[in-house]
Amino acid sequence: MSLVTPPGYYSLNEESVRAFLDGLPEIQARLGGKPADWTVVEVGDGNLNLVFLVDGPDGSVCVKQALPYVRAAGESWPLPLDRAFFEQAYYRAVAPVVGALVPAFYHYEPALYAIVMEKLAPHIILRRGLIEARRYPNVARDVGEFTAQATFATSDLGATIEEKAEWASTFAKNTSLLRITAEVVFTDPLGTSPRNRWTSPHLDDLAREFRADSALKTIVADWGWRFLTDGQALIHGDLHTGSVMVTETDTRVMDPEFAILGPIGFDVGAFIANLVMNFIAQPGHAKAGDERREAADWVLDQVPVYWNTFSSRFRALWETKASGDAYPPAMFGPADAAALDAARTRFLDRIFADAVAYAGVKTIRRILGFAHNADFERIADPATRAPLEAKAARLARQFLLEPGSFRTAEDIVAAARAV
Amino acid sequence: MSLVTPPGYYSLNEESVRAFLDGLPEIQARLGGKPADWTVVEVGDGNLNLVFLVDGPDGSVCVKQALPYVRAAGESWPLPLDRAFFEQAYYRAVAPVVGALVPAFYHYEPALYAIVMEKLAPHIILRRGLIEARRYPNVARDVGEFTAQATFATSDLGATIEEKAEWASTFAKNTSLLRITAEVVFTDPLGTSPRNRWTSPHLDDLAREFRADSALKTIVADWGWRFLTDGQALIHGDLHTGSVMVTETDTRVMDPEFAILGPIGFDVGAFIANLVMNFIAQPGHAKAGDERREAADWVLDQVPVYWNTFSSRFRALWETKASGDAYPPAMFGPADAAALDAARTRFLDRIFADAVAYAGVKTIRRILGFAHNADFERIADPATRAPLEAKAARLARQFLLEPGSFRTAEDIVAAARAV
Ligand SMILES: Nc1ncnc2c1ncn2[C@@H]1O[C@H](COP(=O)(O)OP(=O)(O)OP(=O)(O)O)[C@@H](O)[C@H]1O
Ligand SMILES: Nc1ncnc2c1ncn2[C@@H]1O[C@H](COP(=O)(O)OP(=O)(O)OP(=O)(O)O)[C@@H](O)[C@H]1O
Repeated sequence: MSLVTPPGYYSLNEESVRAFLDGLPEIQARLGGKPADWTVVEVGDGNLNLVFLVDGPDGSVCVKQALPYVRAAGESWPLPLDRAFFEQAYYRAVAPVVGALVPAFYHYEPALYAIVMEKLAPHIILRRGLIEARRYPNVARDVGEFTAQATFATSDLGATIEEKAEWASTFAKNTSLLRITAEVVFTDPLGTSPRNRWTSPHLDDLAREFRADSALKTIVADWGWRFLTDGQALIHGDLHTGSVMVTETDTRVMDPEFAILGPIGFDVGAFIANLVMNFIAQPGHAKAGDERREAADWVLDQVPVYWNTFSSRFRALWETKASGDAYPPAMFGPADAAALDAARTRFLDRIFADAVAYAGVKTIRRILGFAHNADFERIADPATRAPLEAKAARLARQFLLEPGSFRTAEDIVAAARAV
Repeated sequence: MSLVTPPGYYSLNEESVRAFLDGLPEIQARLGGKPADWTVVEVGDGNLNLVFLVDGPDGSVCVKQALPYVRAAGESWPLPLDRAFFEQAYYRAVAPVVGALVPAFYHYEPALYAIVMEKLAPHIILRRGLIEARRYPNVARDVGEFTAQATFATSDLGATIEEKAEWASTFAKNTSLLRITAEVVFTDPLGTSPRNRWTSPHLDDLAREFRADSALKTIVADWGWRFLTDGQALIHGDLHTGSVMVTETDTRVMDPEFAILGPIGFDVGAFIANLVMNFIAQPGHAKAGDERREAADWVLDQVPVYWNTFSSRFRALWETKASGDAYPPAMFGPADAAALDAARTRFLDRIFADAVAYAGVKTIRRILGFAHNADFERIADPATRAPLEAKAARLARQFLLEPGSFRTAEDIVAAARAV
């Protein structure tokens, strides 16, 4: 792969982004004034892309552009630009059902691989807020609602075979980001990739022990197979707390460039894992006079709030909006109500089991793999950080090796407290 | 949907097929002589397409062309022509690994939705041979080998993410035939479709009982969901004994127009179900002095031969040719050999469980749904046929409701004898 970019592509900067937006009448009208009146600031703190926030006299927008390499790794790790295409395709696919739980989508510029969307302000990244011990009373319910709506509508319960086939055919091509997930989430962390890192020497023994655990490795590989094959719905693909922006009252899910047809539990498990990791990390952020006990408890309590919202909303959608080809209404009559109800429970129990396992996989990769979480990384002292990371890793191993112990979201809460 | 066909399409007849082939130098050379020297006969006994066998002085070919409607139902059930595209795409995808277990593929004519391939002679349809109590010593092994090779190579064990994505993106568009399977295999038989039929009045009670069995219906729906979502490999999609042509020594799998990314167990279960149905039907074909006991035993014994071949070959391929992104070799070292072996056993056990369930679904649809099997249909006397069909249906219900009783292929054999 090379860094040669397609004709018409250039990477935007704080000047050229003005000219680009000036060429889009609708955006220009939204911002008001002249390009020279606009303030532009590049804020991309992420791993992969450029992000510009643009303010005009009348309004604001956010421009996100794909770069031809992994920003966090530098030009040595090239990456196709088309992920911007999949990001906007995901927004378009779920827009009819998720409402204002995502940023409003304004424009996609194919040649530049650039998305123009609502600028979220004064939102901050949820993970940052949680690290600062802030509370967001709606966030778990909102993300639960988002997950239920987005996955139901794009599954064989909410979409026809023909509708789902469009997404299947489109998102099958999101191979570069699928490969990244397969490698950095499933393959690398328990293997020997040079991209791996961990708090060393403190966790050297733990890393060695995990990598020598053949049973754990094959279980992770079982779930890797499931991840690659189980096309239940269009999933976000990277639904951690860094992909959610919040205020006290508003929640937006963003950054869906990893979207694929995949297992619903992968999204659910990602969000749960990141709440649990934040909970485990809280003591590392404690200061004299602020033990962070209550903040930690609050975060952990969001796990059942999230799961219960997701599962009850998903079930309600199934009961009222079934319009796909799975469990077709034509097969069932009033006499089948109880059996169908039991089938819905089985179905949601399986998603829960999947979510627990994927939460395990997603946690291990944040401790032993390439991309770590600010929840732990912001704990400067490795002697404080390492034992907390070890707790998270041990809990993750329980998720994977003792699935029978996790039947409800409360079981996750209890195990996270006990670890 | 209408019967208006795309420009350039016309349905071939015994005359126009000559002109068509005359325009293909390679085929012309293969046949030898002039079009007037060729004999052409239309033999399509199938449900969906025209099939011409063409013999020239030097050689022969078979031409299969899609019609814009379901042949068996008439013009009232229109069907897109593109299924011919998917049929040839499947042959091309598996050609590198299945060798002469499929007819040699010569040419695809996009405008006519016509495939030109090897004419199989003196092959007959396996189902017909089995109904005539003939034995084919290689067939179960050959179809087992075929299933293992074709599914392994197109799964995440044998193909990279990028290779599989090509198939996923292409075959996702095979929606018309996917819809047929979803409806006639999963939705209709236990529902109230006017397309359903059964041996009446003999099986009226059984049909009523099955359709009132809420638990059975939701289990079938569970497997319908799995069928629609579980993109494990490129599967044939209709691997019954009518999709296999045989001589005493040669086996060819054909008619893969239902190909999709789907669960491997769907192919495996289809073949098993059709062997079992033939076994159960054998007494219906008995004549004075020919009880058909040995013929029946022989057919049933092919179930373990098929499964054991499939599973041992699949495992051997995994051990020697793993080149996909699932269970990536980079994750495992010599110390993991035993655990990986256990993972392979788990994996194949899951495919077996899937196959048993899909065998159940596929059997029920042949007794209560739209398309029946010659194995039963050729039993002219309904009073003889009905009790045998009832046996098959009851066994199918066991497959679906008592999965724990079916751990090995021998369990299937025992249950089929006991029913
Ligand atoms: N619509 C928006 N409004 C305001 N700020 C935004 C918006 N989109 C992104 N940002 C800011 O830009 C940052 C990076 O955005 P995003 O996470 O989408 O990019 P990324 O390069 O894909 O990062 P990641 O490494 O998380 O994948 C966010 O953390 C946020 O601070
Ligand atoms: N390559 C071939 N060589 C010889 N005969 C063939 C060949 N292909 C098909 N036939 C004959 O044509 C018949 C119909 O073929 P095929 O099953 O492919 O068509 P179809 O319309 O898809 O039928 P089905 O209802 O089984 O789906 C076969 O049963 C067989 O007798």
